[in-house]
Amino acid sequence: MLSEFDLIKQYFVRPAGSGQPRSVLGIGDDCALLAPAPGMQLAISSDMLVEGRHFFEGEDARRLGHKSLAVNLSDLAAMGARPVAFTLALALPAAQPDWLQGFSSGLFALADAHGCELIGGDTTRGPLTICITVFGEVAPGKSLRRDAARPGDDIWVSGTLGDARLALAGFRLEHSLGAELQHAAAQRMHLPTPRVALGVALADGGLARAAIDISDGLGGDLRHILDRSGVGATLDVDALPPGPVLAQQAQSLRRAFTVAGGDDYELCFTADPAQRDAIAAAAARCGTPVTRVGRIDGDAGLRLVDANGMPLDLVLAGFDHFK
Amino acid sequence: MLSEFDLIKQYFVRPAGSGQPRSVLGIGDDCALLAPAPGMQLAISSDMLVEGRHFFEGEDARRLGHKSLAVNLSDLAAMGARPVAFTLALALPAAQPDWLQGFSSGLFALADAHGCELIGGDTTRGPLTICITVFGEVAPGKSLRRDAARPGDDIWVSGTLGDARLALAGFRLEHSLGAELQHAAAQRMHLPTPRVALGVALADGGLARAAIDISDGLGGDLRHILDRSGVGATLDVDALPPGPVLAQQAQSLRRAFTVAGGDDYELCFTADPAQRDAIAAAAARCGTPVTRVGRIDGDAGLRLVDANGMPLDLVLAGFDHFK
Repeated sequence: MLSEFDLIKQYFVRPAGSGQPRSVLGIGDDCALLAPAPGMQLAISSDMLVEGRHFFEGEDARRLGHKSLAVNLSDLAAMGARPVAFTLALALPAAQPDWLQGFSSGLFALADAHGCELIGGDTTRGPLTICITVFGEVAPGKSLRRDAARPGDDIWVSGTLGDARLALAGFRLEHSLGAELQHAAAQRMHLPTPRVALGVALADGGLARAAIDISDGLGGDLRHILDRSGVGATLDVDALPPGPVLAQQAQSLRRAFTVAGGDDYELCFTADPAQRDAIAAAAARCGTPVTRVGRIDGDAGLRLVDANGMPLDLVLAGFDHFK
Repeated sequence: MLSEFDLIKQYFVRPAGSGQPRSVLGIGDDCALLAPAPGMQLAISSDMLVEGRHFFEGEDARRLGHKSLAVNLSDLAAMGARPVAFTLALALPAAQPDWLQGFSSGLFALADAHGCELIGGDTTRGPLTICITVFGEVAPGKSLRRDAARPGDDIWVSGTLGDARLALAGFRLEHSLGAELQHAAAQRMHLPTPRVALGVALADGGLARAAIDISDGLGGDLRHILDRSGVGATLDVDALPPGPVLAQQAQSLRRAFTVAGGDDYELCFTADPAQRDAIAAAAARCGTPVTRVGRIDGDAGLRLVDANGMPLDLVLAGFDHFK
């Protein structure tokens, strides 16, 4: 039986020279030590993933390692912060070598792609639960805050929306896709791509004002920007970019799952219309498509309209863990 | 039914002016923002507490709020870092107002005592699990690292050892204490005192070399210092300060539970013998008793001896979550 210390050493301590060390002191002491770059602020986010709640029982370990870090990197992206390091707290029902090998390889593949070092954490026995806290750097005044949207701003989203929600509908037998499409949609659910390069480009270039990552559905997440900025918005639902699988479904489903999906991990951001060309150019450099989908208004509330500007009466419910 | 956002707002977002804001941006955005003090390093530690593993089912919420943060502050203390802020990720079976009120009040009472701000986190439904990541500041070169012990160093411990382990023995019916003593010992288990002031004083004053916090039993934790420093140690078991309840028990129990207890959250540190007076003075200023209990040797291994320097053959087992 693998001990707690062997487990950490074998699967989570990297050989010297692998990955990119960002810390002064990493795994193995009471604390890790980070030396922040002079003058930079540290952006910090923490997410907890619980089996049966955020992922299915028996979920593939490698995908889970990827997703656990991806959802945290997505928070850094939404702030415009460059990833530096993360901690991992892991409760496991048992120390299974295959699972640990898969989980750590999925985790480190994504971490290395973003130069983000695992600097510490905790392992314990318990119901499968993953808690990652991630650290990024952003220059003072450059971060993309939820409270910074202004009337007249364009609303943009990155990538495409709704395929993860569509996959969930398939798994729940609410909607039938056929095996091939279900598999394609499920990739979006299992392996989200955090939009780090885009977030950093928007912040560094001063191109965007407010941003949020879309994890609980665009409508619900956009409301957080509206609430904190004291503004309203009009969203052109038919302009929302559906995922490639959702794009093949009926309009009613496209509308529902682009506006109120979940697990998209795209960025929603607002920007001065004067920045349109610069944003398009930055997005092209990052290889991340962006789409203008509405505008920020002075009047409170979120108004959904169709391609002709006519009001749409969709029932929206952002995801709430306690409802 | 309380929503996730109401829950956070009601129990974890503090009214302006309460507590000590340490962050640029706290709860309510994708990330919190910290501006580290110029030139300081950030010490970071993460601990996960699982119901039925780290605390009993039905544990009092207020005590649990205290303990969840205390074990993390204890890691900062062991590094000699001054607490700044923390994140809290919380999985709850249900959003119960009484529980949340108790938990948050215990948490914030300790946080405020240490000027440590809650800056963000996550709440979700799931088996009761608490993951706190804590941030402290320490000057470069001043941190108390596990790899810094040298042959000839004194070994010290703060406070007293073993009462928490004794309480556990009572709860497990391995040992009977009577109601009053059981209650007194249990206070140590439920409400540990992180030795933050002492750790900071030792680091700031350059008084100690290596340190660790004693969470899994002194013997096991001291071994981490020995392993990382490439040294050995001789521990005078009869010099170990037992907790007030354990002090009334038989010698065999005193020895066993001071050397291999658990949940003590005292500091074990090593220091140049030339610092004895300075350490005693610093400890007195902090109001934290300290005791010299052995010395670091050049020969590998941990040797346990009695008051006469004779070898003791105690079976030691540090706590391991996967054994």
